[in-house]
Amino acid sequence: MKSANENIPYKIFLSEDEMPTQYYNVRADMEKKPAPLLNPGTLKPITAEELEPIFCKELVKQELDTIHRHIDIPEEIREFYKMYRPSPLVRAYCLEEKLQTPAKIYYKFEGNNTSGSHKLNSAIAQAYYAKEQGLKGVTTETGAGQWGTALSMACAYFGLDCKVFMVKVSYEQKPFRREVMRTYGANVTPSPSETTEVGKKILAEHPGTTGSLGCAISEAVEEAVKSDGYRYVLGSVLSQVLLHQSIIGLETQSALRKYNIEPDIIIGCMGGGSNFGGLISPFMGENLRGEKNYEFIGVEPASCPSLTRGQYVYDFCDTGKVCPLAKMYTLGSGFIPSADHAGGLRYHGMSSIISELYDQGRIKPISYKQTEVFQAAEDFARCEGILPAPESSHAIRAAIDEALKCKETGEEKNIVFGLTGTGYFDMYAYQAFNDGKMTDYIPTDEEINEALKGVPQFPGNEIK
Amino acid sequence: MKSANENIPYKIFLSEDEMPTQYYNVRADMEKKPAPLLNPGTLKPITAEELEPIFCKELVKQELDTIHRHIDIPEEIREFYKMYRPSPLVRAYCLEEKLQTPAKIYYKFEGNNTSGSHKLNSAIAQAYYAKEQGLKGVTTETGAGQWGTALSMACAYFGLDCKVFMVKVSYEQKPFRREVMRTYGANVTPSPSETTEVGKKILAEHPGTTGSLGCAISEAVEEAVKSDGYRYVLGSVLSQVLLHQSIIGLETQSALRKYNIEPDIIIGCMGGGSNFGGLISPFMGENLRGEKNYEFIGVEPASCPSLTRGQYVYDFCDTGKVCPLAKMYTLGSGFIPSADHAGGLRYHGMSSIISELYDQGRIKPISYKQTEVFQAAEDFARCEGILPAPESSHAIRAAIDEALKCKETGEEKNIVFGLTGTGYFDMYAYQAFNDGKMTDYIPTDEEINEALKGVPQFPGNEIK
Repeated sequence: MKSANENIPYKIFLSEDEMPTQYYNVRADMEKKPAPLLNPGTLKPITAEELEPIFCKELVKQELDTIHRHIDIPEEIREFYKMYRPSPLVRAYCLEEKLQTPAKIYYKFEGNNTSGSHKLNSAIAQAYYAKEQGLKGVTTETGAGQWGTALSMACAYFGLDCKVFMVKVSYEQKPFRREVMRTYGANVTPSPSETTEVGKKILAEHPGTTGSLGCAISEAVEEAVKSDGYRYVLGSVLSQVLLHQSIIGLETQSALRKYNIEPDIIIGCMGGGSNFGGLISPFMGENLRGEKNYEFIGVEPASCPSLTRGQYVYDFCDTGKVCPLAKMYTLGSGFIPSADHAGGLRYHGMSSIISELYDQGRIKPISYKQTEVFQAAEDFARCEGILPAPESSHAIRAAIDEALKCKETGEEKNIVFGLTGTGYFDMYAYQAFNDGKMTDYIPTDEEINEALKGVPQFPGNEIK
Repeated sequence: MKSANENIPYKIFLSEDEMPTQYYNVRADMEKKPAPLLNPGTLKPITAEELEPIFCKELVKQELDTIHRHIDIPEEIREFYKMYRPSPLVRAYCLEEKLQTPAKIYYKFEGNNTSGSHKLNSAIAQAYYAKEQGLKGVTTETGAGQWGTALSMACAYFGLDCKVFMVKVSYEQKPFRREVMRTYGANVTPSPSETTEVGKKILAEHPGTTGSLGCAISEAVEEAVKSDGYRYVLGSVLSQVLLHQSIIGLETQSALRKYNIEPDIIIGCMGGGSNFGGLISPFMGENLRGEKNYEFIGVEPASCPSLTRGQYVYDFCDTGKVCPLAKMYTLGSGFIPSADHAGGLRYHGMSSIISELYDQGRIKPISYKQTEVFQAAEDFARCEGILPAPESSHAIRAAIDEALKCKETGEEKNIVFGLTGTGYFDMYAYQAFNDGKMTDYIPTDEEINEALKGVPQFPGNEIK
């Protein structure tokens, strides 16, 4: 085993007073901004007034802010962050040794909190703004359950009611997640459900569906709009979420600077893009300002390949088409991905910010099949100790492959990846892998083309 | 919410070079030593030669060493520790605020690793010595599964084979634990099993038993002795394990000193005593040397009250009576506790070191019913974020009660407790609690007296 040479510790921890006091808004440094959200009725950019019945006021402001580079993190949020942050930047000495690579691998580990992932970073911010606005509670959707757990924790902390629509396949694969949310006092409903109009409609059209994030979003939005004193909150995709998640990248940046480490490649997994966006934002800002030239790799599942195989058009954010239109790489809001075990990555679209940055050629997306991903997960677990979430393991796979390329070329690249969470609630998936029973599913072009037919039709929004 | 006043951060982290380089052996500071292990045949103190067919050579040496105060931690073990240590000492600001107590509460959190508990501290040490001895593999038992997971991780790291006998009730309540162990390459058998002679015997005598640590130990020892190149390793009770776990107390001591915090009360949960012993050892050393006068509270489940209701006699460590005799507070090796959810605390006896220290009046033991414990767990989770293991929650309950006493008296005591692990694999238990279906079981005096009849009969070993 390689010892901790070069005086870089296994885990680089910042002190609490080195933690960021402001979020970083990457949109401020983008010359060409992400396309604005559109009102689906008028096809005009949506206004704050139109968004406020759905989202908390302050969050609407953040959603629409493409100007301010830095946004203060309220003290109450910073105090909560101290309960589980700063998160460590870990040098993967053991993995490097196992791969026999000259590359140096670092990972920012966001799994050391009960939600098991980075989701808590935005959950606590969103709950805080809801509380500040005097709301009774919030509604949301959850895929793998990490966002729902995070929001439940945040709501328990601020004394808010929390209603969670959980994608049915995850509700069934991960019953324990439901109990964690209940322990934190949340109300959890499998989606699609009979409790909303949109849920009933989806069930009528697709009986036996295992659900999707797109369906669950529609139900949660409907529930928020019809309940007095409630707003809807979302765990990914939106620009406000990437803003909150910038704390991941800011801490990573500080930790690397502390030891004069210059990253070459920065890698993250992508579902809606919040972790990846949060991790890369401050580094991307340096690229955008012409100061640096980092390489960014976003990794998605081959079963739900929005960036690698989707189209860059305006689309609905949800299956029920109740949300504003967002311009993004999409597989079509009607795309219902297979019951892949990386539940948190099963979203048909991609953050507008990430989509625009990709369109500008600033991000390299790749996709992997889930068996490839679980092999990486197991290899990583056995040498680094941490049992990674299936979602996070997409980034591990890519980091390993980049490190193996360095072995070929002899390059000593610094590879940084985001390890978003732990896989304690994914043991059915690990069991399938251990038993050799895990299968891979890749949608056909026909399936994707069929789903893309649901993209709204208007001039300038044609599918290629 | 109380802010981080007095300049004490939420989490006190040591740097890697502040980590201990030696274990602390509390027996060296005990004037009256713990009673030696006895050979059950001759009733004479067991020799190294007699122990070496069961245990690794170096571990036998540590087991019998009552003289050396400090024992070097080999560099390979220290390197592994850096993957998840130093663990944070957390100031429970939110819990204090919720309780409105003038007390200051700190907890040493050992759950930030995949085994989910402190068990990894000893697992890696034991695996290291097995590897050094050139063994093929090790056998062990596990209760809640934390020790088995820890040992699987350690064995994967050193390339050792790992055979785990898992108490049947936990095997069934925690199927996911099995998959974590398998992911790390271990072989897991529910105990009692038909794979050993002692397992068959126990099953014949107690058909339908849900097992106990005592049964599983017997099976694992038998398996080790009959397999070439294998030794048995144990996750608690033994003095060597308390020695390895002293890293918890040593780090706690350094962290407190860093901020000039003088603890008044130190609290830990007790099953076999390894966490509690490890946490208190260095502080107990100060008491033993007459330098300090800390108060120590050991907390056990009312369903398995070895210290609060057991007898201090020589007893078998295992149900099958294949191990050496240990003098300890015991409920009798035939005592099979109810299917309490704190699986890791379901052991009939208590570490000889803890037993002797208690007999000297240096430790205050208390017991709680599991519903009281889960209420504390939920309260803690909702304000401190971390979802605690049922085992650890015994210490939380006691810490809360001590803090509430301070509220009555106005005393600003510094309370330190050990938060040994996370409860991600205990969601059936949380579900039972959430649904109001959790029951309490307390053994009757008759049940305990009946089990104590199994204590070996020889002069000086009478039951009172």
